[in-house]
Amino acid sequence: MSQAVAQESLLRVAEAHRVPGVAEGLALLPPAVRAQLAEIEAEIQTLADRPRGLAAASARHVLEAGGKRVRPILSLLAAEACRPGRRCPGLVGVAQAAELIHAASLLHDDVIDLGEWRRGRPAARLIYGNAASVLGGNLLLVQALHLVALTRLDGLMEETLELLRRMIAAESLQLASRGRLSLKESEYFEIVVGKTASVFAWSAESGARLAGASREVAAALGRFGQEVGVAFQLVDDLLDLVREPEEIGKSVWQDLQTGTLTHPLVHAAQRSPDRLAAILAETGESGSRLGSAVRDLARETGGVDATRAEIRRRTRAALGELEGLPRTAARDVLALLAEQLSSRGA
Amino acid sequence: MSQAVAQESLLRVAEAHRVPGVAEGLALLPPAVRAQLAEIEAEIQTLADRPRGLAAASARHVLEAGGKRVRPILSLLAAEACRPGRRCPGLVGVAQAAELIHAASLLHDDVIDLGEWRRGRPAARLIYGNAASVLGGNLLLVQALHLVALTRLDGLMEETLELLRRMIAAESLQLASRGRLSLKESEYFEIVVGKTASVFAWSAESGARLAGASREVAAALGRFGQEVGVAFQLVDDLLDLVREPEEIGKSVWQDLQTGTLTHPLVHAAQRSPDRLAAILAETGESGSRLGSAVRDLARETGGVDATRAEIRRRTRAALGELEGLPRTAARDVLALLAEQLSSRGA
Repeated sequence: MSQAVAQESLLRVAEAHRVPGVAEGLALLPPAVRAQLAEIEAEIQTLADRPRGLAAASARHVLEAGGKRVRPILSLLAAEACRPGRRCPGLVGVAQAAELIHAASLLHDDVIDLGEWRRGRPAARLIYGNAASVLGGNLLLVQALHLVALTRLDGLMEETLELLRRMIAAESLQLASRGRLSLKESEYFEIVVGKTASVFAWSAESGARLAGASREVAAALGRFGQEVGVAFQLVDDLLDLVREPEEIGKSVWQDLQTGTLTHPLVHAAQRSPDRLAAILAETGESGSRLGSAVRDLARETGGVDATRAEIRRRTRAALGELEGLPRTAARDVLALLAEQLSSRGA
Repeated sequence: MSQAVAQESLLRVAEAHRVPGVAEGLALLPPAVRAQLAEIEAEIQTLADRPRGLAAASARHVLEAGGKRVRPILSLLAAEACRPGRRCPGLVGVAQAAELIHAASLLHDDVIDLGEWRRGRPAARLIYGNAASVLGGNLLLVQALHLVALTRLDGLMEETLELLRRMIAAESLQLASRGRLSLKESEYFEIVVGKTASVFAWSAESGARLAGASREVAAALGRFGQEVGVAFQLVDDLLDLVREPEEIGKSVWQDLQTGTLTHPLVHAAQRSPDRLAAILAETGESGSRLGSAVRDLARETGGVDATRAEIRRRTRAALGELEGLPRTAARDVLALLAEQLSSRGA
């Protein structure tokens, strides 16, 4: 796949996912970053094409469904911000690994949560079966670790294994929260940090480290990634509430089964512990009635406002972490990315 | 857990699993190896006790069901054969990692194969659910890789990732063989090497490398492990046929669903391609009739004899790999282990 085609496909993906900020941001990316991103996209295609069998088909399914490639972009920009205009050996591999780790977790999550939809398409496990999703996830994980090992960067393998441990712990907490209406806000954040934000943090921090950044600068970029990751998830949670009531109802029901209530609802449940239970008792699974009632609840209890405030807080914190960096084009794009990911759907 | 208690539990496990050879072999183990084995057993207990939640419970379930710990024993003996009486840094970790990788694959396999029984107990997934088994497997795998990373042995992480890749490829081939009566012998061995023997090989080879063995000696011990691993699986296959017809029938049916026919049947199906299909058409799933017919088929077509011959061949090849090693107590025990694992149930 040529670089131009790869970039075209990235733009298309970003637009299809209603992430105009990313699509515009891509156009603003420093040329070196754009070129490396295209390389990664091509590598991902090659990786997906190579091994045969159901496990590989399942890995291909989730990779080709096309994420926004936010994690690789974070790695590349973090590196570029620390070492403008210079290629860093191993960087493209690590940026790719970030996407593979994410894709692996999606495949395993679908098996864990009995998920039926993923990125607007049927989940891989519905097409190729649970077995292929478990193996496909393992395949992606092993490939990601292989790319990490190739960097030979001191301590990076340990940090990557620590990332995987945090992801597993968050999944376990989520598993233990199934069916609970009373998820604490602290538990919500533990899950979101472990499942989502920690991968963002790892992507940015390891990009910076491969660019030779000091521990302090790399850690600041890691915190940047973490705050952006949390904000990203909070925005997703808000977007959940602007859909049709039928859809909202369906996803609330699913969230309860899988132990992932959205932030506005966690907040609402803390303020008015019994109202969500009463709504469920009254409406049952009926999608649109449940959806309307939940949407009203989230607004009336101040849940939506609380989530908006949290997004602003996280975005400010993220931007604050960039202040110690020298002013570069990459730093500006990182700031823009943080702002645009946080204002999706606003 | 004290060393004496840990060793006691190992002996008990070995006896419960009808592996008298291993139990007797344990008594013959050089004292240093026995001590390290007890350390590993204690570490495994600690690991299993530490994290809470369903994923850890599921990991604990499979670790405590108690394997024969053959893989750690192989690592320790291989090291001892290369460097008698000296402790090798990282060795206990790698030997433990061998058991964790094995346990992780059991947990994932149960999800992949919809397994209901494992080591005479209900599979973890039936008690804690598929989700906990997927996460528990991931937890064990990450811990194993962490132990490997700690050794800092050049290339060992890469080799471990390569092992995991082979295991996934074998599982994928098995997945693609579901329901096929016509598994080729070469495919049978590809699956057995990938799923079982490659872990034996890795265990022995990495033990030797941690003991400072040359590449050649380590590779010979790796091949020893691989041959022993294949023989081990072939013996398991033979033991399948000496059970009650009802049990044989059930497991043939399961093997067909999961794509793992036993060697005597693969051989029988090559000799008389249509007879197995005819038996299935005639008896259907009915356990005892199917079991008797299959047992007769395996004997009459020479499948049982072929498997026995293959076990002898593999054991001889394994013993041949030991010839280049200096004569030590550990080498003698390795030879004994190969012979005893191959003569279980004979």
